[in-house]
Amino acid sequence: METLIKIVISVKDIILDRSQAGKITEKGAADFVTAVDLSVQNEIKQQLKIQFPEADFLGEEDKTSSFDRGKAVFVLDPVDGTTNLIHDYQMSAVSLALVENGIVTKGVVYNPFSEELFTAERGRGAYLNGIPIHVSGAASLSDALISIGTSPYEKERADKLFKLLKHVFLKAQDIRRSGSAALDLCFVAAGRTDGYFEQNLKPWDFAAGSLILQEAGGIITNFSGGDINIFSNCDILAATVGCHHEILKEIATIY
Amino acid sequence: METLIKIVISVKDIILDRSQAGKITEKGAADFVTAVDLSVQNEIKQQLKIQFPEADFLGEEDKTSSFDRGKAVFVLDPVDGTTNLIHDYQMSAVSLALVENGIVTKGVVYNPFSEELFTAERGRGAYLNGIPIHVSGAASLSDALISIGTSPYEKERADKLFKLLKHVFLKAQDIRRSGSAALDLCFVAAGRTDGYFEQNLKPWDFAAGSLILQEAGGIITNFSGGDINIFSNCDILAATVGCHHEILKEIATIY
Repeated sequence: METLIKIVISVKDIILDRSQAGKITEKGAADFVTAVDLSVQNEIKQQLKIQFPEADFLGEEDKTSSFDRGKAVFVLDPVDGTTNLIHDYQMSAVSLALVENGIVTKGVVYNPFSEELFTAERGRGAYLNGIPIHVSGAASLSDALISIGTSPYEKERADKLFKLLKHVFLKAQDIRRSGSAALDLCFVAAGRTDGYFEQNLKPWDFAAGSLILQEAGGIITNFSGGDINIFSNCDILAATVGCHHEILKEIATIY
Repeated sequence: METLIKIVISVKDIILDRSQAGKITEKGAADFVTAVDLSVQNEIKQQLKIQFPEADFLGEEDKTSSFDRGKAVFVLDPVDGTTNLIHDYQMSAVSLALVENGIVTKGVVYNPFSEELFTAERGRGAYLNGIPIHVSGAASLSDALISIGTSPYEKERADKLFKLLKHVFLKAQDIRRSGSAALDLCFVAAGRTDGYFEQNLKPWDFAAGSLILQEAGGIITNFSGGDINIFSNCDILAATVGCHHEILKEIATIY
């Protein structure tokens, strides 16, 4: 675990360096982020290969690589929250999970802007910079702040989704949108929000965060209330027990 | 200006101290925030009175005090983003403006969690921790990240508002919701987002941020495209020139 943490934290400067950000054009900014993404992934992959030569690898920038699901697999999102990185919104994270026999056993999510490091090992609790974290005591939506996903690359979902967002907003205190799925899961784990949902997340978006959330006492399922599959795209609902129950009911009225 | 900055920064520890946070019940948490709000306001007001005995005062926790609009008036939100403070979402700010003859001449917005200090004096540009900031180059919504307000205390607005949110989302890259109006205005000023809108903001929510936004090259109007009145509640639209134009058109189709 200490090795994983060291490897993840080592890429901080690559992410914070905006000297190549190419702010003038959106295209330049997008190219910059792709370069950062690849650079972070190469750095982490290389270090993992030295330390754990037997492990397989699945990453956002490495989708096509074949891997053995029965083996130990590292699942990496080098920069979760790429739109935020383009805009310098300061809400992005490295997300690294170790999956063994299809089960996430270690998770590390690191926001280099705030220097917040969320970690969990299965059965050993969840931590923020070494201090134990727990989901909030919010028993119902009326006490809850809910993080929302918008699936910005699949705008054909917006009609139904914005209905759901409004329904949840009306029952909750308010909604938040950070633009980083990995951080949203960790914020529920730390009790900063009381729930989070988003459609069609990729394994590298939610693998590490799902373990951190569960080890902090949260519930995570798909939009039907069933188990998530760590190697497939999933609709994700993560929350305290009470909020999970209520949001699931709202989802059922729309989907 | 240096005196104002010193006064605002001096309340950092009051906001960060969660020892009285009373996380167990929502009621306890709300009482905690009210106590922080009052404590920050009293501290700042007291220091302002010593340094600027002739100035008047308008604050969120001091709404009923009469003041002379022709005089110098300090407009203070001791904690903008109180729901965030309750939930420890780490996205709150002190917002202090100096208004002279109805015009904001100085603005200071300080986020003690990130230690980011946004400042502006009229005619002298806008700064983040002393470094000049400018709005982004986003010429149209298709390149834009837009901060949204939800008016969480006036949920009767939700039907129309969520229509607008969906329309803007469909044309923009994505939306963000931070829960702090003062920071949302500063984020547009710093080019982290390209626009922000929210209905029925109070003077202390937007006074300081409006100057920072303008000094960074942004446009701020009400929902009809008209000037904002610094002493009245306003619907606020703040953005780059191009995004302001497009969002105003979307607003006009709904309101």
